Amino acid sequence: MSQSAGEVYLCVSQKKIVSTMKERPLIFITNDDGIQAKGLKELAEVMRLFGDVVVVAPEMAMSGMSNAISVDKPLRAAKVEEEDGYVAYKCSGTPVDCVKLGFNHLVDRLPDFVISGINHGANSSISVVYSGTMGAAIEGCLHGVPSIGFSLCDYSPDADFSKAKMWVARVFQSVVEQGLPPFVCLNVNIPKGSIEGIQVCRQTAGKWVEELEKRTDPHQREYYWLAGYFKNFEPDKEGTDMHALDNQFVSVVPVNVDMTCQETFEQMKTWKF
Amino acid sequence: MSQSAGEVYLCVSQKKIVSTMKERPLIFITNDDGIQAKGLKELAEVMRLFGDVVVVAPEMAMSGMSNAISVDKPLRAAKVEEEDGYVAYKCSGTPVDCVKLGFNHLVDRLPDFVISGINHGANSSISVVYSGTMGAAIEGCLHGVPSIGFSLCDYSPDADFSKAKMWVARVFQSVVEQGLPPFVCLNVNIPKGSIEGIQVCRQTAGKWVEELEKRTDPHQREYYWLAGYFKNFEPDKEGTDMHALDNQFVSVVPVNVDMTCQETFEQMKTWKF
Repeated sequence: MSQSAGEVYLCVSQKKIVSTMKERPLIFITNDDGIQAKGLKELAEVMRLFGDVVVVAPEMAMSGMSNAISVDKPLRAAKVEEEDGYVAYKCSGTPVDCVKLGFNHLVDRLPDFVISGINHGANSSISVVYSGTMGAAIEGCLHGVPSIGFSLCDYSPDADFSKAKMWVARVFQSVVEQGLPPFVCLNVNIPKGSIEGIQVCRQTAGKWVEELEKRTDPHQREYYWLAGYFKNFEPDKEGTDMHALDNQFVSVVPVNVDMTCQETFEQMKTWKF
Repeated sequence: MSQSAGEVYLCVSQKKIVSTMKERPLIFITNDDGIQAKGLKELAEVMRLFGDVVVVAPEMAMSGMSNAISVDKPLRAAKVEEEDGYVAYKCSGTPVDCVKLGFNHLVDRLPDFVISGINHGANSSISVVYSGTMGAAIEGCLHGVPSIGFSLCDYSPDADFSKAKMWVARVFQSVVEQGLPPFVCLNVNIPKGSIEGIQVCRQTAGKWVEELEKRTDPHQREYYWLAGYFKNFEPDKEGTDMHALDNQFVSVVPVNVDMTCQETFEQMKTWKF
């Protein structure tokens, strides 16, 4: 059976990982599109080459759930699949709930990595703050575990992840080799179609506009749907994640979970309240 | 009728605000405890001294909703109160939905400020990432509006906000006078009980541990409740928000909505993927 370039690369990567770590790593996987999502299955397939995999993913789609946690309702979890070196659970909560529940009750040791995704749709620029995919990665990071969120710029439920998977493996391998600083995780977005390479980026400045569409229901009552479009405040600016993606590069943004603005912190010391 | 020190201060503050701004500011208020919460009413009372107030708050409690947005379901809004210079709406969505819906459909111009809270309970340290109160403030900030989230370190529904209100006014007034940089909002926590003063702080490093309590329901099925306690990684560290609060100081953390970790960004430029 012949192998694609991606498959050969994955084999080489696997060898490197195994030689880097003392034992087979425990890789915790989740997402926000839910346990049935294609992107999750594709991610698990890649990660099983590198280590033992535990999946704890929402039983329902949880897009846009950010770092939300279930404060007022009980959570349920159920095992849905188990094979040698692989176990998958569905959980009734948010992506962050999945990480918390998984870490506290479903794994017997702290995972070596949290990998979230592969999201169906981009999480570049400020979408990092709304994204459940990144919410889960941030949660892993808060637990001191190197964490990465992966997103493919294709919202289709049957999106083609074949090219993306090789880049997932490459980024993962780099994190294994280089490590990540405490309180920093990665937001990785992968363009749809051909891929020119990879760029370390910063979060693009921008915002969503005309975000809610007003409609009238059959009972003549108004309601609103989230819609709108993204306005990039710095189009064509090199070094931003959206510029990388626009030019068919994978974007990698290091995300700081310490949200303190150091510069403003210094300036505010002179404030008289 | 005699006035308390707080009331006198508020009168002076109001005069300063009015002299600083050309017209009466439009102040947008929301929270995550819901439209009925005492903290919201107390906040509105303070803010009405300084400007025209529009409240758009969740109809239900939305604690822990972070920056979550309602992607898959329609939103509703209804006016619940109106007086001269004051209007309040309840909204079926999250705190961030309230800001988006309000900005897009319920106000006739971009508000001058977004003020979120006063939350019943602390949002210090990493709680900033889970907090719906701060989710709303971050959303205001993403729209380019100076935004502040206020929280009182008292979870009680009938918490005493009387001392807190004076500090809300003082912080608000300072923001009016000094402004805030783009993409930076404030996370302000107010201790319960006596208040020694105010400190500009950074986000304390820490995490929640033993977060989910396992229980068995009447049908012998397992379920989990969010619980646990906070572990401070740097107790007694001056300059952190939790240290300030532990010593009865109001903590003010400038929060950066550009989550790029600049230091890691520079380091990662040498990575070979």
